[in-house]
Amino acid sequence: MSTETSEQLSLYTLGGLGEIGMNMMAIEYAGKILLVDCGLMFPEAYMMGIDLVLPDISSLEGRQDDIIALVLTHGHEDHIGAIPFLWRDLGEPAIYATGLTLGLLRSKLKEFELDSKVPMIEIQTRQKVDLFPFEIEPFRAAHSIVDGVGLAIRTPIGLIVHTGDFKIDQTPVDGQNTDLARLAEFGEEGVLLLLADSTNVENDGYTLSERTVKKALEEIIPQSVKRVVVATFSSNIHRIQQIADVAASNNRKLLINGRSMVANIDIARKLGYLKIAEEQFIDLRDMRSLPPEEVLIITTGSQGEPLSALMRIALGDHKQIELERGDTVILSSKFIPGNEKAISDLINNLYRRGAEVFYEKTSEIHVSGHASREELKLVHNLTRPKYFMPVHGEYRHLVKHAQLAQEMGIDAENCFVVDNGYPLLITAEGAELGEKCETGRVFVDGKGVGDVGAMQLRDRRHLANHGLVILMLAINQSTGKIVQGPELFSKGFIEEESEENNALLDEAKQAVCDLLDEHSLDAVSDWEELRVEVRKALRRCFNKKVARRPLILPVILQL
Amino acid sequence: MSTETSEQLSLYTLGGLGEIGMNMMAIEYAGKILLVDCGLMFPEAYMMGIDLVLPDISSLEGRQDDIIALVLTHGHEDHIGAIPFLWRDLGEPAIYATGLTLGLLRSKLKEFELDSKVPMIEIQTRQKVDLFPFEIEPFRAAHSIVDGVGLAIRTPIGLIVHTGDFKIDQTPVDGQNTDLARLAEFGEEGVLLLLADSTNVENDGYTLSERTVKKALEEIIPQSVKRVVVATFSSNIHRIQQIADVAASNNRKLLINGRSMVANIDIARKLGYLKIAEEQFIDLRDMRSLPPEEVLIITTGSQGEPLSALMRIALGDHKQIELERGDTVILSSKFIPGNEKAISDLINNLYRRGAEVFYEKTSEIHVSGHASREELKLVHNLTRPKYFMPVHGEYRHLVKHAQLAQEMGIDAENCFVVDNGYPLLITAEGAELGEKCETGRVFVDGKGVGDVGAMQLRDRRHLANHGLVILMLAINQSTGKIVQGPELFSKGFIEEESEENNALLDEAKQAVCDLLDEHSLDAVSDWEELRVEVRKALRRCFNKKVARRPLILPVILQL
Repeated sequence: MSTETSEQLSLYTLGGLGEIGMNMMAIEYAGKILLVDCGLMFPEAYMMGIDLVLPDISSLEGRQDDIIALVLTHGHEDHIGAIPFLWRDLGEPAIYATGLTLGLLRSKLKEFELDSKVPMIEIQTRQKVDLFPFEIEPFRAAHSIVDGVGLAIRTPIGLIVHTGDFKIDQTPVDGQNTDLARLAEFGEEGVLLLLADSTNVENDGYTLSERTVKKALEEIIPQSVKRVVVATFSSNIHRIQQIADVAASNNRKLLINGRSMVANIDIARKLGYLKIAEEQFIDLRDMRSLPPEEVLIITTGSQGEPLSALMRIALGDHKQIELERGDTVILSSKFIPGNEKAISDLINNLYRRGAEVFYEKTSEIHVSGHASREELKLVHNLTRPKYFMPVHGEYRHLVKHAQLAQEMGIDAENCFVVDNGYPLLITAEGAELGEKCETGRVFVDGKGVGDVGAMQLRDRRHLANHGLVILMLAINQSTGKIVQGPELFSKGFIEEESEENNALLDEAKQAVCDLLDEHSLDAVSDWEELRVEVRKALRRCFNKKVARRPLILPVILQL
Repeated sequence: MSTETSEQLSLYTLGGLGEIGMNMMAIEYAGKILLVDCGLMFPEAYMMGIDLVLPDISSLEGRQDDIIALVLTHGHEDHIGAIPFLWRDLGEPAIYATGLTLGLLRSKLKEFELDSKVPMIEIQTRQKVDLFPFEIEPFRAAHSIVDGVGLAIRTPIGLIVHTGDFKIDQTPVDGQNTDLARLAEFGEEGVLLLLADSTNVENDGYTLSERTVKKALEEIIPQSVKRVVVATFSSNIHRIQQIADVAASNNRKLLINGRSMVANIDIARKLGYLKIAEEQFIDLRDMRSLPPEEVLIITTGSQGEPLSALMRIALGDHKQIELERGDTVILSSKFIPGNEKAISDLINNLYRRGAEVFYEKTSEIHVSGHASREELKLVHNLTRPKYFMPVHGEYRHLVKHAQLAQEMGIDAENCFVVDNGYPLLITAEGAELGEKCETGRVFVDGKGVGDVGAMQLRDRRHLANHGLVILMLAINQSTGKIVQGPELFSKGFIEEESEENNALLDEAKQAVCDLLDEHSLDAVSDWEELRVEVRKALRRCFNKKVARRPLILPVILQL
């Protein structure tokens, strides 16, 4: 990212376009950069063994001193999760966010021993913050987490409205509606550029209010004569409030299960976002002394995560919590794309334990936090922007959102379906896309950040699909005699117990011996070539016999 | 499976209960066994590198002479796909099926050079076949493949009705309705046991008629001013018929793409199940000379299979077919659970090429082939069985179907939610579950059948998630001197280019050296123990430094 001329606004995303997660955007004017969000992404199936994915911020290398601030829209992982990993490399910017967002961030930073180092400034809705040459004004955005905001960002050449993740919930649990009044005022003031959430652009009509979930809970829970387990996202404080309220009115005490659930409930209660009386909570010991119909367990693990408490409960592997015939389990959560099979397995296993299970597909016990088409149309009509850039969504969502914007009257050439890294350059004269900056994904594996790349993933995929065969061979370099080997070991390739399979490995060994016979080993000048030939011979043999391609690693020692 | 007493009917599934796919059932009376279906399953994500999954038939070992016949309900892979692999081990039974099912099976057997060896007998709906001590009567079952049947199986102690996969399509494309009249007559006759499809028990109401898809096609295709690509399942002959009909009425010629699509269209046309005039078809060369608005491509690849032609088209990698802005792609297919992410990627990539894409989520261009709850209720009411056993479904589907049966008036103790391998034993006195027989899954990987087992899959998973580190060390056994090494190679573990990572491997090497210094290598008596200790030292080092657990393979040569 180069220093731009002072009349030009340059806006580009480091992550979050054409993908779900890893939201991060840089807005530059007169050499100064404002960052919005700094999220992570959870790995896709092909990223084997990867724990987390971060945006690649190398395009900001050398620009750290120009970064004025990092502003956060809300506290979901895909908006704040990369901060502990990237904050130092970003030049340790001050972070601006609302109360709960900072609360969640602080707890995250604590794990990295950064909480006392990061300057955190709490912002309030409708209160402007001067971040020269920008001025930001957060406005309320209802979402599946409490205390979310969108941002009005005033720049010398005009007003940017960034919705953040939002929906227009007409009856939010905390009474904090998406600030349609301010959106309308921005529209009157004149919006240069609208950035809006595209996640649910495929859904017609309106997204249901969070409050409707309570009705579903009020139908299911009183019917249950035994224990009730409700799994949901630990960040969905409104959902937790509603579950707790229905539990209380049904004379059920709360057992909280799952590390992040315990932590987030604690933070939200301390900050006043969650109102549950202390005496409502019980621990495992209390639970044992209560009849099952007086217990409700709130837990994480709604995505069928293999190591989660809920999966262990479903498999009968949990030490303290055992399901009984007649227990009720409610998955008050979305089937996140990519997790469908794991969630389906979870549900099947819960049924095997004798529980009755309620989930998104069969009951209305979850609503989305993102705006559907009619809500998006309303925001477009209120703000009437000159330029539009859809954000937060896979590529098809961005395309469909741009189509919707055009239906709402924005010229096609003023809609920008953009990939990560392409800067949108806006001047008084017009807007266009600039040259792509470096962007990408940085993998976190264990404690390693960025030390696993595309090549390691390719090798992991190869190993995963075909396993591995090691050929060991020791040769006396001067005599050309084989000192030891050839021997073959395999892992993940074939069961070595059976005669038939041993025969395969014997045959493979023979193929290597034949190859070596053809060579005068004392005259080998190019050992790398021999290695290549051995590998080829083995590959041919395995392909012919079993049509498989294990990774072949010849370990040839020249002594 | 042991020989049962003559008054007892024993019925057990080798696959298809508590899972989708691999449908296979054995029905035994007086020592004689009738097999129904012999399907395969496509691998789940954790079965890395596996191509196909077959039912384990070892419980039929030694009973081959007692197998009277294998009867097939329809031609889907999950009902016929295991036959080429298992037919010989089943004692080469005669196979009974309807015309198209045999046509599809024959083409499959041809690949295995078995087509001339397997006795295949065509059956007709409403025509009884004597398979003493059983008598089977196929009845029409509408489904997402042509020529499907359910089976009435008469046994000396009563009538079994097996629906096969079915829906009650009131307006099937070929006019072949599910035979409600015969089902009603079976009910009047008295049904001992009903086995019914549970796949869609979570869906309220009725499954839409296959014919409704045509309406959606008739809306989308005329609007398209450029090329149209329709992806669907190659076995869905009715769907292909409807696509071809709409293409014809819109003056579009057909290019058929995908090996199975070409093969199945050929078989279905030869057998008279598909009516498309020869002049409707074009090849790639013809396509180039036609304007895009006169072309419709029917293709496989609707599940986002990485190597499919459609995915290559979407990625711009296909040699002959290139998408242009304004082309239309229709995925007239289900998002099969587990494939959602791949299909989503496919759609995003099609949008990146500039195509407009229609799919299940946004348009009604697919209907299911399985009965919803109201249809199931109708079948229960018509047949009024004494006993009920839900089949074809994951565990939760079986439970919910049993609940539905109880709502329809069957006693809970007469409903059997059964796992694979548990025989349902029925006599004149009553019914109960017997002891579990051996069942399981046999993996096909390349040409190997059953040579990859649980241990190889565990190793593959470990390699996939963490990669591999090989330690090479050669020791002179008599002197105890290290002749070569220690050296470390890694695959899929860490990028070895950077200094930092090399430092990690150097440190690991040092840890091994330290360990070796502690030992008098000339006095090592237990080399296996040394190997274990080396592995431990490396594991500790990697865990401490990067919190990762690569598979560690010490190759220690004693020379």
